[in-house]
Amino acid sequence: MSKPLKQKRQNYVHISWQPDKNSKMPLYKQVVEYVSSKVSGGDWAVGSRLPAQREMAKAFGVNRSTIVSAMEELMSYGMIEAAYGGGTRIASNTWSLFLSSPPDWNKYISSGPFKANVPTIQVINKLEFDSKYIRLGTGEISPDLFPKTMMEDLMKVLPKRISSLNYLGPHGLPELQESLSKRLAAMGIEAKPSNILITSGSLQALQLISVCMLKPGATVFTEAPTYLKSLQVFQSAGMDLNGIPMDQSGLMYWKIEKVLQGSLLYTISTHHNPTGTIMPQGRRREIYDFCSANRLPILEDDAYGELWFDEKPPLPIKSMDKSGMILYTGTISKTLAPGLRIGWLVGPESVVDRLGDVKMQMDYGASSLSQWALTELLESGAYDDYLKTLRIKLKERRDLALDLLERYFADIAEWTAPKGGFYIWAHIKKSIPSDKLFHKALSKNILLNPGSIYDYKENRSIRLSYAYADKKDLETGLQVLSTIIKKYK
Amino acid sequence: MSKPLKQKRQNYVHISWQPDKNSKMPLYKQVVEYVSSKVSGGDWAVGSRLPAQREMAKAFGVNRSTIVSAMEELMSYGMIEAAYGGGTRIASNTWSLFLSSPPDWNKYISSGPFKANVPTIQVINKLEFDSKYIRLGTGEISPDLFPKTMMEDLMKVLPKRISSLNYLGPHGLPELQESLSKRLAAMGIEAKPSNILITSGSLQALQLISVCMLKPGATVFTEAPTYLKSLQVFQSAGMDLNGIPMDQSGLMYWKIEKVLQGSLLYTISTHHNPTGTIMPQGRRREIYDFCSANRLPILEDDAYGELWFDEKPPLPIKSMDKSGMILYTGTISKTLAPGLRIGWLVGPESVVDRLGDVKMQMDYGASSLSQWALTELLESGAYDDYLKTLRIKLKERRDLALDLLERYFADIAEWTAPKGGFYIWAHIKKSIPSDKLFHKALSKNILLNPGSIYDYKENRSIRLSYAYADKKDLETGLQVLSTIIKKYK
Repeated sequence: MSKPLKQKRQNYVHISWQPDKNSKMPLYKQVVEYVSSKVSGGDWAVGSRLPAQREMAKAFGVNRSTIVSAMEELMSYGMIEAAYGGGTRIASNTWSLFLSSPPDWNKYISSGPFKANVPTIQVINKLEFDSKYIRLGTGEISPDLFPKTMMEDLMKVLPKRISSLNYLGPHGLPELQESLSKRLAAMGIEAKPSNILITSGSLQALQLISVCMLKPGATVFTEAPTYLKSLQVFQSAGMDLNGIPMDQSGLMYWKIEKVLQGSLLYTISTHHNPTGTIMPQGRRREIYDFCSANRLPILEDDAYGELWFDEKPPLPIKSMDKSGMILYTGTISKTLAPGLRIGWLVGPESVVDRLGDVKMQMDYGASSLSQWALTELLESGAYDDYLKTLRIKLKERRDLALDLLERYFADIAEWTAPKGGFYIWAHIKKSIPSDKLFHKALSKNILLNPGSIYDYKENRSIRLSYAYADKKDLETGLQVLSTIIKKYK
Repeated sequence: MSKPLKQKRQNYVHISWQPDKNSKMPLYKQVVEYVSSKVSGGDWAVGSRLPAQREMAKAFGVNRSTIVSAMEELMSYGMIEAAYGGGTRIASNTWSLFLSSPPDWNKYISSGPFKANVPTIQVINKLEFDSKYIRLGTGEISPDLFPKTMMEDLMKVLPKRISSLNYLGPHGLPELQESLSKRLAAMGIEAKPSNILITSGSLQALQLISVCMLKPGATVFTEAPTYLKSLQVFQSAGMDLNGIPMDQSGLMYWKIEKVLQGSLLYTISTHHNPTGTIMPQGRRREIYDFCSANRLPILEDDAYGELWFDEKPPLPIKSMDKSGMILYTGTISKTLAPGLRIGWLVGPESVVDRLGDVKMQMDYGASSLSQWALTELLESGAYDDYLKTLRIKLKERRDLALDLLERYFADIAEWTAPKGGFYIWAHIKKSIPSDKLFHKALSKNILLNPGSIYDYKENRSIRLSYAYADKKDLETGLQVLSTIIKKYK
């Protein structure tokens, strides 16, 4: 993915309309009218690109000659022009100025500090909702695993608990904080309700930390590769991500050269995303000691900790923390339902208060319906019962994925069997640039999460997820993928 | 409120513990242990202040002499020190360095571009959850008005619609976009589903616009006073808020002196927050024409539009928009339940796509449980039926509030009867600084929203809300408030 990462973001317009073949208006003229209306209505911003003629012909369901006529007319209006690097782009909407004058939204949408997602991630975010693709890398549980009965039972009792759905305070629903406090205690983490901030998924915790706690230019140390690299959250806030290599026990902290004041270390200590690594107890202790000695706060992301198969992983590093130097995040997005948008951050009150205050300014907090739902699931014990079943089913899926890999990938890739979480980190032996592989797979209706989106440099591994695709898709997808790889020259 | 607005943010620590009087450990020693543990655990950040001795004695439930002994001991450890301007503050946690070394969180929490809420807003956000206060300014419907039966019925059918709660795409739940598209059409707004972005309340739309569409230093024109002034969202992103005076028809657009490229006009056109003004059709047309001519995009916030009493207000300005120059936001936070955290933004696809992409990076979108809930309520017609009842009940509350004002405020204030929304904007004739009034009311357990938090300068009006407090509280609150005002010299 090194290429798309560096490439400038390209805004291609989206065509979702076809001319009426029974109309008296010529087809090319209908296309002209359509493009004009999209541009004058501001839907297609000045500067955005039109697809290649062949693709447009396909999208509009017309001959290429029709497209040529339409483009000529639009060009004569000055509405489109030849684009740098080939193709055409929207040149101006002056044509529509006779009607009225839309602002130049393209100037607006390229303003502001927030970066656009990297192109591969934009493609993934979009195509995940197109059912024609087999999703081999998706980091969420399959709809097959969704506990419908539990949710139905929940909805029966939920109205009794909810007397209104008014604004909640800066920290979230007190009942949920209480429940989480107890749950965390069982994981060795001592956290009073006042140490817990409810967030809209743990992503929001990262977002809050990036805008309230880190100075632009601050260093954030992460594992390399890391989930964080696939997000823009810290980069948009001007942080400097610094990837530290991993061995089989996780982050090799001794490779951190210099710790400046204001830095942070981000780690996914259990069932690491994307590599699946579990950091053993010894390494946890060493990292804790190293960070204590260097006054380097830790942000421990424990999204996958509950998803173990045969034996419980070591307690979170946070459980060693006596001085409040670790911020810890948890979530139900991986275990139950990302759609509920509930996560939590654990930290000293001073930090929780500051983040809570800013959270009130950003979105007034997470859905209280979702918060009540989770509270009820935790208190009733339904969530824990569900987790037990989920672990068994996920393990079956892992076993299937490992069998399939043995069958189709034995010669062409290397991997380690994960002991929990969602992912198998498969290293492809052949030297195929990961963006090539991504697009080749895409052309066969397979959506991949290539290693490079998680790494600081080109990475020839792929993050395979056994959590999402159904069993048939998983087999088809892996089989087709192995053929692509084997054929590649 | 001009004073607190300018005042530097003061971090007072929060004491929620009392020593054990039956313990063998002296009380002062218990206080020392407590303070030490809060500091060494990072809960109380270096630099934060301790309350005055008298207040501490009250909070700890001990004599003042006990506090004096405890403070002396803590000072001898170097853990607290005399603070600039009187009182004491946390000096260091070096004492705890012998145990381990927490990072200096105070340095972290004062970093990052996001500003803290203004002190009055912080107080309001906190005390709103203390039931001892009568809330005379709260901008949400009373729990009495919450449609419990409708929500129970909803929960019965909701599980049938939900087959999983996985991540949604960047724009939100397609079914909800469809429903909103139809609803907006009935309000004269032509918006395809692809022109609609679902947000976590309309506050998140503001947040997205501030980080993606406006350059630091860009001018945002608003009514003066305006709801926007009570938020830090645009200020934190470095925007320059520019207040334009209002007459009884709303924003006097001809007072806008110069429109620079990259500016935006923010308006609450219907049942304006905080003044209650409804912009008549004529002014809407003039503002639309003015902004078209000046290529000044409009952000129209229509949070209260559906809450009319006797006759429908004019259509939103957005209904005039043929060129996509208006971004429009709606929400159910005022009509139904802010806790669902659902709002929507309507705009050209180019804008919706950009904001959707960044939204995916910030929190992956609003709760899908909430989105399904609203979709069902809209499609079944239950929401519209509920709105009819709500309008009647809100109008009764408005009438009661007007009666009470006649009874208690006839000599001391002026106001206009609102035709919808939540607020009566009452101008206090006496010259009482609004922060004085706020704190005097607070000491009588009344929480006010003083005009100054909404204005660019000291404002002697108060935003009274008839939506929240129950009828008894409303009477008690207004009566006590009138006494405070009458007694003031």
